[in-house]
Amino acid sequence: MTQNTTDPAAVLATLIQCPSVTPDEGGALSALTDMLSPMGFSVERPVFSDQDTPNVENLYARLSGNGPHLMFAGHTDVVPVGDEAAWTHPPFSAAIKDGMMYGRGAVDMKGGIACFVAALARYIEENGKPSGSISFLITGDEEGPAINGSKKLLEWAASKGETWDGCILGEPTNPDAMGDMMKIGRRGSLSGTLVVNGIQGHTAYPHLADNPTRSLVAMLDALLHPAFDEGTDNFQPSNLEVNILDIVGGAVNVIPAKASAVFNIRFNDTWSVETLKAEINRRLDKAAKDRKLRPTKSNDSVFEIEWREQPSHVFLTRDDALIDTLGKSVEAVTGRFPEQSTTGGTSDARFIKDYCPVIEFGLVGQTMHKVDECVALDDLETLTRIYEQFIGDWFAAAADKAK
Amino acid sequence: MTQNTTDPAAVLATLIQCPSVTPDEGGALSALTDMLSPMGFSVERPVFSDQDTPNVENLYARLSGNGPHLMFAGHTDVVPVGDEAAWTHPPFSAAIKDGMMYGRGAVDMKGGIACFVAALARYIEENGKPSGSISFLITGDEEGPAINGSKKLLEWAASKGETWDGCILGEPTNPDAMGDMMKIGRRGSLSGTLVVNGIQGHTAYPHLADNPTRSLVAMLDALLHPAFDEGTDNFQPSNLEVNILDIVGGAVNVIPAKASAVFNIRFNDTWSVETLKAEINRRLDKAAKDRKLRPTKSNDSVFEIEWREQPSHVFLTRDDALIDTLGKSVEAVTGRFPEQSTTGGTSDARFIKDYCPVIEFGLVGQTMHKVDECVALDDLETLTRIYEQFIGDWFAAAADKAK
Ligand SMILES: [Zn+2]
Ligand SMILES: [Zn+2]
Repeated sequence: MTQNTTDPAAVLATLIQCPSVTPDEGGALSALTDMLSPMGFSVERPVFSDQDTPNVENLYARLSGNGPHLMFAGHTDVVPVGDEAAWTHPPFSAAIKDGMMYGRGAVDMKGGIACFVAALARYIEENGKPSGSISFLITGDEEGPAINGSKKLLEWAASKGETWDGCILGEPTNPDAMGDMMKIGRRGSLSGTLVVNGIQGHTAYPHLADNPTRSLVAMLDALLHPAFDEGTDNFQPSNLEVNILDIVGGAVNVIPAKASAVFNIRFNDTWSVETLKAEINRRLDKAAKDRKLRPTKSNDSVFEIEWREQPSHVFLTRDDALIDTLGKSVEAVTGRFPEQSTTGGTSDARFIKDYCPVIEFGLVGQTMHKVDECVALDDLETLTRIYEQFIGDWFAAAADKAK
Repeated sequence: MTQNTTDPAAVLATLIQCPSVTPDEGGALSALTDMLSPMGFSVERPVFSDQDTPNVENLYARLSGNGPHLMFAGHTDVVPVGDEAAWTHPPFSAAIKDGMMYGRGAVDMKGGIACFVAALARYIEENGKPSGSISFLITGDEEGPAINGSKKLLEWAASKGETWDGCILGEPTNPDAMGDMMKIGRRGSLSGTLVVNGIQGHTAYPHLADNPTRSLVAMLDALLHPAFDEGTDNFQPSNLEVNILDIVGGAVNVIPAKASAVFNIRFNDTWSVETLKAEINRRLDKAAKDRKLRPTKSNDSVFEIEWREQPSHVFLTRDDALIDTLGKSVEAVTGRFPEQSTTGGTSDARFIKDYCPVIEFGLVGQTMHKVDECVALDDLETLTRIYEQFIGDWFAAAADKAK
């Protein structure tokens, strides 16, 4: 069956009907293959795995031409549906009601993919192939651990000699309405567990014990105050949250043997992962010294930090041409030049930024990860027109630059 | 069978062989009844209960005479044996090896009871009945929640018109050797749970959430510093320990909804339960104000404290005659006047002190609550001689005073 790929709603309905709950492919990448192949793309479907995480299917599709190389990046995996009974329409039905299409992934981010497919189909229909190459870098592991997804897919493509000149990532970036916001960077994210060992004992005999909570509280206070920075031109202030506290062996009258806390810090371009780790260690060392905290055993340290794997590095796109071209495309369609933001969580842009300039623009994110996730059909049309405008303008700007 | 009550080892063996793990009577109070009745005691066995705790058997035995009234207080319930396989001799066997008798309760405190029974039996054998009354106030709920034990037994006896002039509680008070230490008071104990409510959310969007851990850490810091006092003439400094930390709804990237901490404070005669609660509230209010902590909802407070039931009030015996008589009895037998201490955990003396002056002296506590709990046969003889000396001297001193 040949899909009408110029209609984003039709493309999206096909994708939503594939139950690709992370890490399952669910037919979504195959459906995408069936759409892109007739348009002239060569499609590859690398599967990545490692010891501790499930195998994940990914897709890399390339339409080759002479000129610069534009990447469109995204993910077809979706978060679980939660309480399926709570959905007004079944989460994989793509039901349409009052101008809205319902389904898991409608905005995050099968909708973004559908709009780019439709934009490209329309562009080719009107202009023929662009004067350059376009590739889709689509992962099935963005909502999961993100270990067997974009990171490995980029490495895999680069190892085959692929290079890119710019990337647009289609995550839902608009808080309320199309045209609100594009993301030109993201804060980094670093997590760790602070562990303090003590000596268990009875509260009536504290001199025979060593309460690790005492040191933990002093150290957490040092992590929480003062603020790490005031924010920068492009970023909010870095922010640390302590989200888990754990005690081993404590009871009302029993001093515990061990206390730990898990913290997560969202940090701006004041810091790198390395300088931030050093600052955290400096604060904890200082707290230990100021409060005269001593290790329980002579060969121990007062505290230990177990850093979580895969910190997210901060990134900021400094490619004015990419920002300007996308912003003007949005303005041409919506009448507004979007805010250039660096707020929110991490995205796969943290991996892409090591290969080429990347910015993010997609649908309105309000219903993402929620019951009754849905997208306005009008928004699908708007985003398709923005992407089509962008494809034309980006290759034109690249051609001008090359002259 | 008539027991030889003048031999403390024989009495103790009988008691150890009753498996009276709290709250079970295990035959121990019946065995004691069988020993005291032939000596002329009238024995009553009140059972107390309430909604939430098991029924507990207790014993009150009175030998009536003309003159002052001396109480001997103690408990026959014992803590669980733990890993029974780890015991060298079965925990209810009362096995004797190398001059030591082994068994759960050997020092805490069936041994103390056995010595007082033997001391009294010897005293009566040599002197006839004392010139006054003696009663045994023995509970089966000291190692348990202590709700259906000494507290209710004292109320019950007092409601029948009983009054006492002095009490000796036979808990193991000597750290290393007989004669080391008597307890003339105990610190109080107060526990509470500090609860801070927040708003759950994602760490990438902290402005949409409110992390209760932030407030909890600031408040715990205010509880831990500075010290509550420097100690007093008779007591160590008061000391607060935070023994349990709990978080609801937190994850590495998720700000929790609620954070709480359980603390226990052992306090000296600088404080009453009421003034201490006020001081803790004052510290927390000040921390909330200094740190500008605000409640999550407008009608909430920044924090709540759930006070644990049954705080232990501090007590200090000011009856010099009781202290002097006991101290000299110890000195007469061991050659040392014992240290007058207020250290250690709480005991049922916290209840008795509301009825009459009370001090504590018993065996060596080193093996209490441990595997292979044991007592030296020599120590049993020493304590029996001390108690016999005390019985004679206490009634003599009372008679002198009455003249
Ligand atoms: Zn997404
Ligand atoms: Zn005891």
